[in-house]
Amino acid sequence: MISEKMKNIMQSGSAIRAMFEEGKKLAEIYGKENVFDFSLGNPSVPAPKAVNEAISSVTANTDELRLHGYMLNSGFESTRQAIADSLNKKYGAGFGYKNIIMTVGAAGGLNVALKSIVNEGDEVIVFAPYFGEYNNYISNVGGKIIVIPPAPPHFLPDLDAMEKAIGKKTKAVIINSPNNPTGVVYGENTLEKLGNILKKQSIKKGEAIYLISDEPYRELVYDGAKAPFLTKYYSNVIIGYSYSKSLSLPGERIGYLAIPDEAEDSENLLSACSVATRILGFVNAPSLQQLVIEKCVDTATDVSVYDENRRLLYGALTELGFECIKPQGAFYLFVKSPIAEEEFIAAAKRHNILVVGGKSFACEGYVRIAYCVSYDMIKKSLSAFKKLAEETLSKK
Amino acid sequence: MISEKMKNIMQSGSAIRAMFEEGKKLAEIYGKENVFDFSLGNPSVPAPKAVNEAISSVTANTDELRLHGYMLNSGFESTRQAIADSLNKKYGAGFGYKNIIMTVGAAGGLNVALKSIVNEGDEVIVFAPYFGEYNNYISNVGGKIIVIPPAPPHFLPDLDAMEKAIGKKTKAVIINSPNNPTGVVYGENTLEKLGNILKKQSIKKGEAIYLISDEPYRELVYDGAKAPFLTKYYSNVIIGYSYSKSLSLPGERIGYLAIPDEAEDSENLLSACSVATRILGFVNAPSLQQLVIEKCVDTATDVSVYDENRRLLYGALTELGFECIKPQGAFYLFVKSPIAEEEFIAAAKRHNILVVGGKSFACEGYVRIAYCVSYDMIKKSLSAFKKLAEETLSKK
Repeated sequence: MISEKMKNIMQSGSAIRAMFEEGKKLAEIYGKENVFDFSLGNPSVPAPKAVNEAISSVTANTDELRLHGYMLNSGFESTRQAIADSLNKKYGAGFGYKNIIMTVGAAGGLNVALKSIVNEGDEVIVFAPYFGEYNNYISNVGGKIIVIPPAPPHFLPDLDAMEKAIGKKTKAVIINSPNNPTGVVYGENTLEKLGNILKKQSIKKGEAIYLISDEPYRELVYDGAKAPFLTKYYSNVIIGYSYSKSLSLPGERIGYLAIPDEAEDSENLLSACSVATRILGFVNAPSLQQLVIEKCVDTATDVSVYDENRRLLYGALTELGFECIKPQGAFYLFVKSPIAEEEFIAAAKRHNILVVGGKSFACEGYVRIAYCVSYDMIKKSLSAFKKLAEETLSKK
Repeated sequence: MISEKMKNIMQSGSAIRAMFEEGKKLAEIYGKENVFDFSLGNPSVPAPKAVNEAISSVTANTDELRLHGYMLNSGFESTRQAIADSLNKKYGAGFGYKNIIMTVGAAGGLNVALKSIVNEGDEVIVFAPYFGEYNNYISNVGGKIIVIPPAPPHFLPDLDAMEKAIGKKTKAVIINSPNNPTGVVYGENTLEKLGNILKKQSIKKGEAIYLISDEPYRELVYDGAKAPFLTKYYSNVIIGYSYSKSLSLPGERIGYLAIPDEAEDSENLLSACSVATRILGFVNAPSLQQLVIEKCVDTATDVSVYDENRRLLYGALTELGFECIKPQGAFYLFVKSPIAEEEFIAAAKRHNILVVGGKSFACEGYVRIAYCVSYDMIKKSLSAFKKLAEETLSKK
């Protein structure tokens, strides 16, 4: 007797669950060490030592009622100030604590942002390939998702198509750079053009079109790439951040929203996000982890492990003949399927390689390979990839 | 440019925010020690020592990637099993780990439960006085709240009125015992009658009417009272629990949903709740706190402090002539306003006493006094209450 909406979501979600079950089955037959599971974006690098040290010191030195107690729904002011200071130092963001709302991860933050601005029937634009959960987040608040088709092989957002898709009902655009699943990082030119179009269209519409930026991979960049900070290019910005990837804390559900003073209706919007945090049932981001983040706000992310994985796997797969854009960020390769996507996934599975189809990201004909795994597993997997290449590339 | 729904919620929520501001102003003028703030349900008893000990040992002894990593959306199986075992021991619940879904507090749990079962336009019945956030939780999923009027002076649920209110669109009934704001604990007779009506009406409707039980105060009971465990009286039950009050962890956002095998469509419903946890943006309950709960699942709640507060304040207020049901649970007194509610709140404020009006709980003519404060503050407040009594009781 579950709700109709949930029934549909559960049916469409079953493909990934089926793969998860498949993986367990394969592990039972062949041994866990012989199954190459590239399906999940779960960090393989442990949290920096500073995190557990902060847990100890915060627990030992904080008044009990503050440590585990309620605070404002938007979070501890001291934590928000520490984050603002850090962003100001890194990006000249010009934030005060009031510009920061602590959230239950980036997923919580995106739901809070959408709840705050989207009316029933409002449209939210996304660029394929995109994180499939956006469908649910937008549907949660009665919004309508508008998907801009993918632009291979570079996979930058098709801004002309976006401009054409903007209409009276357009409330927001979501971007995600460094990108899951492509690993592409949007550069200055892209963001400048994006900002200019949104400025123009907001004026035309007579009210702000918000740019929601989903940035859990902000620090996971390679080859000296930088993910530019958005407020420089557009002011109606809602930045969603998470420490899931940068500090390897995905299970702790800790992140924030940042909204600049320059955003239209900024003060009201920040209040709305604080209220949305409460009424959606989050109430506030976990208190202990907020205080931990306050201490670890400038702890550097160790990207070297992912970078080594990236070089090894990207190098090997392209040498085998697979086509793939070289990722500059995040920890995914988005590889073109040499045959029909489902057949390719099935063939990979026969070699004990588990990957996620591009279909899950609204971009059929590709597979996502998450290389946030052990270096050893990647090395061991290469002979399996070689066989997969021999089997599938000849059929192109 | 925030959404219309949020605008309305923010306007209606401003009464409590105004009081919060008022309290800060009063503290500045008279000194914090001379302001008697009874407005918030924030535990004044620190978390038991076992909690911080568990934080240390879990942090020191758990594999890093498990400690802070993703797990199933429904939570660690080991934590869920520990909770199931504890409920089985206490109540003979007959649960396995599969019957438990870890949630971001009870507020998160209620949103997950409602998302899983409520279709657009479905009705959810609540009994006044009730926690005002239910309005938002039900509205979040497009449901319609049906309020059963309060039944003073005993404030037990009016089950005959409930039966009359049940119709084709009724999807669920929410109860909250021990109750916020009355402190009333529903006894066996009440629950038996409630269960029987819902059984009968479910058969009539041809599908389950779910009973959602919001139980964050389950262990906060006095005078040997017991909050009976619901599964004995009805099988289509979704129990929402939180460690916010029992272990004084409101900021940590940790709780669970429990659904018995006997509930209609139980397996699907549990899956739906797990999926709802993901898509609403919680993803999972905070990982470290899950492991802490696993260790503290049988840690006793110290209710003696609240009980002393209750005796002192209930005794003093009734002696002064105020009317109030003696609370058997939670940490609130629900006092009848001798004059118009708003005037009474204003008069209390003039004596630096801050309370919340019954209007916020859909029960005008009362005020809620949260006695989860220091014993000393209550003692100091009594002379102010005396003046308030002299001023207002004569006007009755």
